Amino acid sequence: MARERTAKKREEHEVEFSRIVAFSDGVFSIAITLLVLDLKLPRDLANDEIWHALGAQHEQFLAYAISFAVIARFWFVHHSFFSEVKAFDSRLIGLNMLYLAFIVLIPFSSQVLGEYGGTLPAVVVYSANLSAVVLVGQWMAWDARHSGLAKADLQTKRESFVRSMFIAGVFLGSIVIAVFDAGIAPYIWLLLFFEGRGHVIERLSRRIS
Amino acid sequence: MARERTAKKREEHEVEFSRIVAFSDGVFSIAITLLVLDLKLPRDLANDEIWHALGAQHEQFLAYAISFAVIARFWFVHHSFFSEVKAFDSRLIGLNMLYLAFIVLIPFSSQVLGEYGGTLPAVVVYSANLSAVVLVGQWMAWDARHSGLAKADLQTKRESFVRSMFIAGVFLGSIVIAVFDAGIAPYIWLLLFFEGRGHVIERLSRRIS
Amino acid sequence: MARERTAKKREEHEVEFSRIVAFSDGVFSIAITLLVLDLKLPRDLANDEIWHALGAQHEQFLAYAISFAVIARFWFVHHSFFSEVKAFDSRLIGLNMLYLAFIVLIPFSSQVLGEYGGTLPAVVVYSANLSAVVLVGQWMAWDARHSGLAKADLQTKRESFVRSMFIAGVFLGSIVIAVFDAGIAPYIWLLLFFEGRGHVIERLSRRIS
Amino acid sequence: MARERTAKKREEHEVEFSRIVAFSDGVFSIAITLLVLDLKLPRDLANDEIWHALGAQHEQFLAYAISFAVIARFWFVHHSFFSEVKAFDSRLIGLNMLYLAFIVLIPFSSQVLGEYGGTLPAVVVYSANLSAVVLVGQWMAWDARHSGLAKADLQTKRESFVRSMFIAGVFLGSIVIAVFDAGIAPYIWLLLFFEGRGHVIERLSRRIS
Repeated sequence: MARERTAKKREEHEVEFSRIVAFSDGVFSIAITLLVLDLKLPRDLANDEIWHALGAQHEQFLAYAISFAVIARFWFVHHSFFSEVKAFDSRLIGLNMLYLAFIVLIPFSSQVLGEYGGTLPAVVVYSANLSAVVLVGQWMAWDARHSGLAKADLQTKRESFVRSMFIAGVFLGSIVIAVFDAGIAPYIWLLLFFEGRGHVIERLSRRIS
Repeated sequence: MARERTAKKREEHEVEFSRIVAFSDGVFSIAITLLVLDLKLPRDLANDEIWHALGAQHEQFLAYAISFAVIARFWFVHHSFFSEVKAFDSRLIGLNMLYLAFIVLIPFSSQVLGEYGGTLPAVVVYSANLSAVVLVGQWMAWDARHSGLAKADLQTKRESFVRSMFIAGVFLGSIVIAVFDAGIAPYIWLLLFFEGRGHVIERLSRRIS
Repeated sequence: MARERTAKKREEHEVEFSRIVAFSDGVFSIAITLLVLDLKLPRDLANDEIWHALGAQHEQFLAYAISFAVIARFWFVHHSFFSEVKAFDSRLIGLNMLYLAFIVLIPFSSQVLGEYGGTLPAVVVYSANLSAVVLVGQWMAWDARHSGLAKADLQTKRESFVRSMFIAGVFLGSIVIAVFDAGIAPYIWLLLFFEGRGHVIERLSRRIS
Repeated sequence: MARERTAKKREEHEVEFSRIVAFSDGVFSIAITLLVLDLKLPRDLANDEIWHALGAQHEQFLAYAISFAVIARFWFVHHSFFSEVKAFDSRLIGLNMLYLAFIVLIPFSSQVLGEYGGTLPAVVVYSANLSAVVLVGQWMAWDARHSGLAKADLQTKRESFVRSMFIAGVFLGSIVIAVFDAGIAPYIWLLLFFEGRGHVIERLSRRIS
């Protein structure tokens, strides 16, 4: 029952290929911009209540900053991955759609995080959402590289794998920790700082070879 | 009173052609991203109410998943159709706009479905909306192929026709069934699974030839 | 004090030119998609109230249909105009932005129309908004053609002018009529049907030559 | 610990480069269109209350007009800057994302300004937001020019610097003034009119050389 995969080469179907990328970019840019809708001042406040109302939104501002950085980072990874894609088929398009479905959920998860920051449900929703993005992204990359749609050298593949597992691990780990103390969980996310440091990931990837 | 149709060739008006596609992609990507706005946690819940409030949204999550998949699928079909379009005129642009008008309605219908899942009005609104997309899409494809704007071989034309009638039939049929039992209707939609299986459609299309 | 106009040729600055078009298309596609946000069912209705609530939105659905058609039409005209643009300068970009500022207002005006359909304020807001789009659009076109940025033959120029004056006239006229009877005004808009009939505009344009 | 910067040339990575630009344009066009969401008439007004309700929104309309012009202007500057970019690296992408994060905040700041126009918090939020856009924009431009990613002659660099400092100065200055009288601050912003007059900036830039 293996479905045949008829890949289309990128250079021969440039318009179709760029539509996939344009659609993805559209979804990314809208999702990242919708984050601002979680920031809302109540109407009809007295003058001396405005500062207070702004201050009361500090968790929403924090959630905005985190989620903006997260979506921007995912866009960057998506961007890098698609620059190595040489051909596409309907499975790649399907996985990309699944990936985008979790990207689009981020404004919702971010709203939950902004509203209920220190609680278990917020940590679970946010971490599960971001883990899903990373895992589906790795699935898509693995599948495309495996079937020859994307060309990547061994080191890139390994780094991409280690990086994804690291991020997903941090998020899933933070869920476990949140069961005991939901307030600590977000600090675990600070470990993601190391993901940005290329040499940490590089060293880890070398170790597994 | 037949209005003259002066078609512009795609390769000679590449910028204009790609604007039609870019505009459509923009509408698709915004409509699909607006689906997330139907997911909203109430503010100021007590900690032990958050799980409950999330659980109470399970129909909204389901509607989100279904509608995301539906719009993604329509985008894919639109994408495939436009890759065979070789020229365009104002009628194609007009039909494409009518098609997009029903795509843009999906977030509304999806909200109705998420809110009033098991009821007749929800089934009618959702099914009518999606049937309209499929039927207008088939009209646009038929018109473009008939007038030489799009090139498709006989088998593609037949499959496209059978596929559209199948989908529209499932949705319109579910309306009839919903009159008797609105709760069953969504299960009828599971028949759409067969639309994804190419060989079913292929076999059906062969039969009509 | 005449400010110097240093036009950039389209073919030499293709990326910059296509950014202007892409930005405009983005704004058009978002504005047209935001129209759906005016359609909203209240939550927590009893089953037998849903049909009623949907019926109570019939003016919103009508406003959606009208405004979708209107923005789609404006997009089409913008599309046609920009296909004759051969060069651009900062004034064209500025006028295009002013034009888009009124396009972006349409979802607001449409909400007012949907909510307060038969009233004077709704007719004034909606008509003023659409007139502004048409007049700024004509200003932009006239300016670009006059300064050599866009090439159009005499007949195209005349038709474009007559068309714009006709549309603006219908809308501004409907404001005058609405002062006496706001309920009649929308029927005046049906005169716009003739704008789509090319030969009426053509005949009128010939008459002025 | 200087991180190596491996720049990619624009002409060799045209698709990747245009994705950065397309993503930015998407964000700009969505942010500018979301401004309309701050304009909302209450439902169920009596006929004679509609004019009053529209009039009560005059500050929202003003905020809409100002913010539309501001985002349009920023888009124009972004547009000009990216037309001189010849290569890109991950730092430029990162700075561009930081820049866009402040662009996306503008609809929020604009809502605060529209709602609480004459108050200190509104002036601070709005001015701080716009100053941040200008300063990050200048940082990005300086960094790109300094590292050879963007080519600009000395005069362009100076003008860009003077212009940014002028705008940021006006906004930050208006915060200081707002501490004493928040109602005057917006009039200070009218100084920005001079930014549009090229020769003022030009003269100032010549003076510093």
